Amino acid sequence: MNTTTRETAITADPAAPTILIAREFDAPRENVFRAHVDPELVRRWLGPRRLTMDIDHWTCETGGSYQYTHRDENGDYGFYGSFHEVRPHERIVQTFTFDGFPDGVSLETLTFVDLGDGRCRLEGLSVFDSFEARDGMLSSGMDTGVIQAYEQLDELLAG
Amino acid sequence: MNTTTRETAITADPAAPTILIAREFDAPRENVFRAHVDPELVRRWLGPRRLTMDIDHWTCETGGSYQYTHRDENGDYGFYGSFHEVRPHERIVQTFTFDGFPDGVSLETLTFVDLGDGRCRLEGLSVFDSFEARDGMLSSGMDTGVIQAYEQLDELLAG
Repeated sequence: MNTTTRETAITADPAAPTILIAREFDAPRENVFRAHVDPELVRRWLGPRRLTMDIDHWTCETGGSYQYTHRDENGDYGFYGSFHEVRPHERIVQTFTFDGFPDGVSLETLTFVDLGDGRCRLEGLSVFDSFEARDGMLSSGMDTGVIQAYEQLDELLAG
Repeated sequence: MNTTTRETAITADPAAPTILIAREFDAPRENVFRAHVDPELVRRWLGPRRLTMDIDHWTCETGGSYQYTHRDENGDYGFYGSFHEVRPHERIVQTFTFDGFPDGVSLETLTFVDLGDGRCRLEGLSVFDSFEARDGMLSSGMDTGVIQAYEQLDELLAG
């Protein structure tokens, strides 16, 4: 399999407690969108390579919610949130909490941009309630997780 | 009916796109919490006095969602969101969108603090994805709406 890996740009805004993640995919935005909605597909790419993912539920629709567990040889890591809005092929707005930091919550807006020629760009803006929370996320190793997840998504989309 | 009206403190953080609303109530926090969860109670206080409120649904539980319409003689104003977390008597985390600005979304964390002697303080932190969105909310007349809503909540709690 010959999969192109593109750059994942992770930007922390100096003026606001946000993280912007931008990534292009060599696949139609409808396919990238579907890979975020269908839990059977989500399970195959979300998270770093070393982790397996068990989905308790993943109801990706406006007013829906999700809960999943990542596992490795050291233990389990639970995550949950709700889907504020799911606008087909265009936009997903969701909340996010890691069980290990139960008072932390972020709001994530995913925008699926059609680039033509069967390509698209995914832009994810995460908003935190403080710079401290944002910087804590940045220093958690999330960059490695995001980069590896999108590599796995490339492979899924090419498969 | 003799209802004490307390000050509603609305603070815009200069360093982050947030609004903090703090308000004390002469009622136990369990009662103030219940007035946020039970749609029959919510309908009686949420919003400015001049508006009536029709609730499409209000499922105030972790992973739940809500949708309602405020009406006055000029028209209808729709709002919706999801409940990220509902921690009984302590905390509600929810999202918020006004239909008139469909790409705008904020994340609101309500904290119910027991002050003893049958009193409590409610702290609501709203986080926006930009200073522009936060300042737009501040200039929308939301302060009048919040102050009147909490006066109506005083009356409901005293009733």
